[in-house]
Amino acid sequence: MQTLTVNLGDRSYPIFVGGGILPRAGELLQQAGLHGKVAVISNPTVARLYLDTTCDALSGAGFEVMPVLVPDGEEHKDLKSLASIYDRLVANRFERKSCILALGGGVVGDLAGFAAATYLRGVPYVQVPTTLLSQVDSSVGGKTGVNHQDGKNLIGAFYQPRLVLIDVEALRSLPRRELVAGLAEVIKYGIIEDPELFCLMEQAIERLIGLDPGLLIRVIATCCAIKARVVEQDEREDDYRAVLNFGHTLGHALEAATGYTRFLHGEAVAIGMAKASAISVHQGFCDRSSLVRIRNLIQRAGLPLEIPPEIPLEALIQGMELDKKSAAGKIKFVICSGIGKTCFHSLTPGEILSALDA
Amino acid sequence: MQTLTVNLGDRSYPIFVGGGILPRAGELLQQAGLHGKVAVISNPTVARLYLDTTCDALSGAGFEVMPVLVPDGEEHKDLKSLASIYDRLVANRFERKSCILALGGGVVGDLAGFAAATYLRGVPYVQVPTTLLSQVDSSVGGKTGVNHQDGKNLIGAFYQPRLVLIDVEALRSLPRRELVAGLAEVIKYGIIEDPELFCLMEQAIERLIGLDPGLLIRVIATCCAIKARVVEQDEREDDYRAVLNFGHTLGHALEAATGYTRFLHGEAVAIGMAKASAISVHQGFCDRSSLVRIRNLIQRAGLPLEIPPEIPLEALIQGMELDKKSAAGKIKFVICSGIGKTCFHSLTPGEILSALDA
Repeated sequence: MQTLTVNLGDRSYPIFVGGGILPRAGELLQQAGLHGKVAVISNPTVARLYLDTTCDALSGAGFEVMPVLVPDGEEHKDLKSLASIYDRLVANRFERKSCILALGGGVVGDLAGFAAATYLRGVPYVQVPTTLLSQVDSSVGGKTGVNHQDGKNLIGAFYQPRLVLIDVEALRSLPRRELVAGLAEVIKYGIIEDPELFCLMEQAIERLIGLDPGLLIRVIATCCAIKARVVEQDEREDDYRAVLNFGHTLGHALEAATGYTRFLHGEAVAIGMAKASAISVHQGFCDRSSLVRIRNLIQRAGLPLEIPPEIPLEALIQGMELDKKSAAGKIKFVICSGIGKTCFHSLTPGEILSALDA
Repeated sequence: MQTLTVNLGDRSYPIFVGGGILPRAGELLQQAGLHGKVAVISNPTVARLYLDTTCDALSGAGFEVMPVLVPDGEEHKDLKSLASIYDRLVANRFERKSCILALGGGVVGDLAGFAAATYLRGVPYVQVPTTLLSQVDSSVGGKTGVNHQDGKNLIGAFYQPRLVLIDVEALRSLPRRELVAGLAEVIKYGIIEDPELFCLMEQAIERLIGLDPGLLIRVIATCCAIKARVVEQDEREDDYRAVLNFGHTLGHALEAATGYTRFLHGEAVAIGMAKASAISVHQGFCDRSSLVRIRNLIQRAGLPLEIPPEIPLEALIQGMELDKKSAAGKIKFVICSGIGKTCFHSLTPGEILSALDA
């Protein structure tokens, strides 16, 4: 088991990465100073696999456990699901020292985290991510929230968990398509911050897809460490944290334009990274050989590279203008200036269109 | 005009208290570094009186103004009104640097503040309280939120404004019943922190109700300064800030038990303070002469002292158990141990009932 820390003063917290962590959830929560009531928020798919183990572990350590299931899928990361969580917490008299545990992927984590951020103006919560995507990305850093019908994550809060428990064994039950989608974020960390991680992926991406446990722990811990360092520098995304959005500006717009049903988040990000890299080359920031390496790795992972031709680019531009990072009519892009190097650059819709058309 | 500061590091902000501040809103927002789009959130009653002045002041300083009206009344401080605000912000492409201005009483301020706390994970907001209650209490300190059908303020966030503008001239249009209700919070500050303020109220409460401008500015600035000092010591109500809830534990339960329609917040708090003082005497913390002075002042202000006999005490106890401050079956009370002195004490339902019956 590897232990990392996100250093944020009185909001600091540990991340545990290893195999077989879930059955130890109770003692780990206890060590983190939590006690009393815990709401385990999950969805039916994940609950079938891991709810019993989790609840047993918590009950065994003296917690009073209340499971709360929300429907599966990004389209249910909304105010309605949030209201249903509030109802359960109120009905069961959850107090300020009661806690919330998110058991599932990014949807469950974001929703449960936002419920924790806003119930009684904030109760402690624990992230137990069960997908690769959420293990390397959304469970660390305190971004919580729900979607608005007109845009993803438009409603939310920055609110840090007390503890993140990453059990790589949970990945054994993950559908291959979701595992592969998670690799998009792993590739992203290599592109934005870590040429060594990128090389490791070039050498061993097939072993990672084959769920080699040692490699999984090493890679996931590396990703979490990168994310922790970025979040420590800029918790509320005033500037530098936006580097984590490499590939996401277009990725989010693609998800929105297709009603959040066609692409998994990581798939949309994969296309977004390929296009952001192409824009980086077109704008003169990046060499063509880095673009080739990035496209090759995305493809070897089994991820898509191209915007489906039936999606009008104008709809994507419109979606990007609504992005939280846009300002004064220009769209802020994370630009790749070579593997492991990034910069920010604001582009007009015209510049983006001409790069995408090239 | 008096200027105070709430000192909270990078979340510090100024409070301006004076007459005729509203027409200067534009320049004051500008001085605070705000610009671009501003959503003025208000209700029809307040809008009829002050929306034009506010919008003109903002437009005159170059702001792009969008008024957003929510229905009047505590019963509309809910997730539905919140969703309607999100819809308008999204439809009008509000960005991270756009801002929200709350023009109205506590309902508008809490709702607008929570929208600001959670739209795009946080945008700047300005409090422009137009009732005495919100001028001395809810506009300062960053408590934001909405009600749940089963309890007040159960959903919310701590999120500080960038600026508070208190125009005492707005009190001229306030119905007398609401003005008097606001006095409950003023009396509270005297009881918990400031024997001098309490004496001033004993000498001049009638002049205050008569809206003597100099006295209003002095008293409101004193209350805001007390609140600022408490919030600086304990922003997130881990402990000491709860002193501000003197009279509120029972007050909130009274409001809930009567469906938020019978009592104004200040009226419920007045009864709550009278009863908390009686409990303080019953438990041996407070001398009887302080109780007499407190009851006399509440009565001279024109505020109620007694729980209406048709409300079952058991329903109030149940309401108090759901209070955010309750824990492990005991109800945490702010106890008065003489004018200007308080302590915390947890009471069982039985102890509360026997004091109320005495």
